[in-house]
Amino acid sequence: MPERRLAGPVRIVGAGLLGTSIGLALRQHGVDVILDDSSPSSLDLAIDYGAGRRSLPGDEPELVVVCVPPDVTARVVATELAAHPGALVTDVASVKVAPLEELRVAGADLSRYIGSHPMAGRERSGAISARADLFIGRPWVIAGHDAISYRRAAAVEQLALDLGALPIEMDAAEHDRNVALVSHAPQLVSTLLARRLGGATESAVSLAGQGLRDTTRIASSDPELWVQILGANSAPVAEILRALRSDLDAVLVALDDPTAPGARRTIAETLAGGNAGVARIPGKHGQASHFSQIVVKVDDRPGELARLLTEIGEAGVNMEDLRLEHSPGAQIGLAEISVLPEVEERLANELEGRGWKIVGAFA
Amino acid sequence: MPERRLAGPVRIVGAGLLGTSIGLALRQHGVDVILDDSSPSSLDLAIDYGAGRRSLPGDEPELVVVCVPPDVTARVVATELAAHPGALVTDVASVKVAPLEELRVAGADLSRYIGSHPMAGRERSGAISARADLFIGRPWVIAGHDAISYRRAAAVEQLALDLGALPIEMDAAEHDRNVALVSHAPQLVSTLLARRLGGATESAVSLAGQGLRDTTRIASSDPELWVQILGANSAPVAEILRALRSDLDAVLVALDDPTAPGARRTIAETLAGGNAGVARIPGKHGQASHFSQIVVKVDDRPGELARLLTEIGEAGVNMEDLRLEHSPGAQIGLAEISVLPEVEERLANELEGRGWKIVGAFA
Repeated sequence: MPERRLAGPVRIVGAGLLGTSIGLALRQHGVDVILDDSSPSSLDLAIDYGAGRRSLPGDEPELVVVCVPPDVTARVVATELAAHPGALVTDVASVKVAPLEELRVAGADLSRYIGSHPMAGRERSGAISARADLFIGRPWVIAGHDAISYRRAAAVEQLALDLGALPIEMDAAEHDRNVALVSHAPQLVSTLLARRLGGATESAVSLAGQGLRDTTRIASSDPELWVQILGANSAPVAEILRALRSDLDAVLVALDDPTAPGARRTIAETLAGGNAGVARIPGKHGQASHFSQIVVKVDDRPGELARLLTEIGEAGVNMEDLRLEHSPGAQIGLAEISVLPEVEERLANELEGRGWKIVGAFA
Repeated sequence: MPERRLAGPVRIVGAGLLGTSIGLALRQHGVDVILDDSSPSSLDLAIDYGAGRRSLPGDEPELVVVCVPPDVTARVVATELAAHPGALVTDVASVKVAPLEELRVAGADLSRYIGSHPMAGRERSGAISARADLFIGRPWVIAGHDAISYRRAAAVEQLALDLGALPIEMDAAEHDRNVALVSHAPQLVSTLLARRLGGATESAVSLAGQGLRDTTRIASSDPELWVQILGANSAPVAEILRALRSDLDAVLVALDDPTAPGARRTIAETLAGGNAGVARIPGKHGQASHFSQIVVKVDDRPGELARLLTEIGEAGVNMEDLRLEHSPGAQIGLAEISVLPEVEERLANELEGRGWKIVGAFA
């Protein structure tokens, strides 16, 4: 357990996925957490989960974290600023310009407010999906502005660090442009693609593979929340989607007459542009080319995958990643194990020596 | 090893990912496999891998499987029909109307040709990525037509079954419409989204999460191959993308004035349509709601995940799926274990009793 930075108490308003997860994590550090929610049953559930306690008269929070839907974020922040004149107030909404502007217009005390946005979430929502570990290793944007001093804002950075997140400072407008690109536009694009499946025949969906599943996974996200996010960040999202539409129009012209001069070049350059775009994504998966993969056949019965991983552990090799490939209806699966290139050959020999069937190895 | 249906010899033309994988799988069944490729070095590599042997004078294949790029498929099929007058010839191209039409126009003997399409592949290409298990449990489309008798086509179905695939019959036009929806349009949509990242700032890509990685994963596919596929199936793909563009236009109008009457409704209905579309996708992952998930904290050091899976095996529980969530820069990972709902509670108790930290459990 890392050193605790926040003193507390911390008041969390909104006991959904994020609020409850923050509460759970702070409680693990022994921070006094006060929970509140407009829904008594949501509040009860989060308290049952151990994410904090009910508020008591005389509570004086050091920090208030507003974890309510984007549409009501500014209103709740303003209420909390007024109710707790000694506290720093932050929020975790996925948009940062709109709440700040709304607070400015309302004349709120911005010297005690700083917005933030932990880049963590799940397709599932509610306290029931909460995890103390939700924020570990994830970026946590802190949206600085001129009306608050660096020192006054320190508790938000401490919160992010206590939860294992990586604080990143950027202003509200930069944040909103960035999340439009890496989160909000992808959400809509995945949705638009998934929508095409609405009228799909059984014959068509019977051919669905992993590519379709991956591209449409986030299309199962909560419409109510996303209407609010997209409504509050509409201009940056529209700008990206308009650029995408312009590329789409060029591709459509090419597809309408694929043998016309330049048509194949248009499609090829679009595809190559996609290759280049993917290569810009950092992270463990984005850097897959830094690792070698060994693909091992694993029978679909209890204990087999465990035995494989035990033997990898016995070989003293650390897996960088593990991906299971399932074959619907089949009795075997494939385990794709990513390791550092320098240990690949040794591990492959070791596993084959122990009777494992290696069906592929890739640099 | 299931019963072998094909007698052989089987001649495979094109020693890329699919041709080599088919060869490897057939060799495991003891079928005599003759390999050929226009590139001597590709041929050498596939033979080194054990996917088959060089052709010899007097070889009389029972079945020829043409595994070359879509643009040259019909030409190679015609050559093989002429060279092996006793053989049934099939191909594995991702499009089925164009090669059939080209062969019809060329006056080829269609009584010995039937197209097919195994729905299996990888982002990686070439013999080096081949796997004997590539086809297990995957749909294998057999594109029947009127010029070939049911009996004459039997060897293609036998091939699919010997490789563990699930033969599905549909005509060429139905196939092409279906793959436009579940494969070709998703490829282009993922590409168009990934392309937007080309000019992304470091600040933006530093916020990239799993949603962006999933939606853009297939955008790293080979442009050269996809230009051919998209060019050969342009009309069905364009039809889907045009419908998508019409939805996109409606969303753009709504985003341009998100407070206008009906704007939020447009966005909400689009998102709900995406939810409904995803729900149409069958398969193990699409049916995730049939399983319960337990999320366990796993230290990022050799042997820990193996120990977890061993103890799951000791509890007599069969994992239906396993997903690792990595936290870039963190020393722990989260293992999300899918199990049948009726064993979830018992497994959770068992693991906690053994000292594992369960950070979430979901029905």
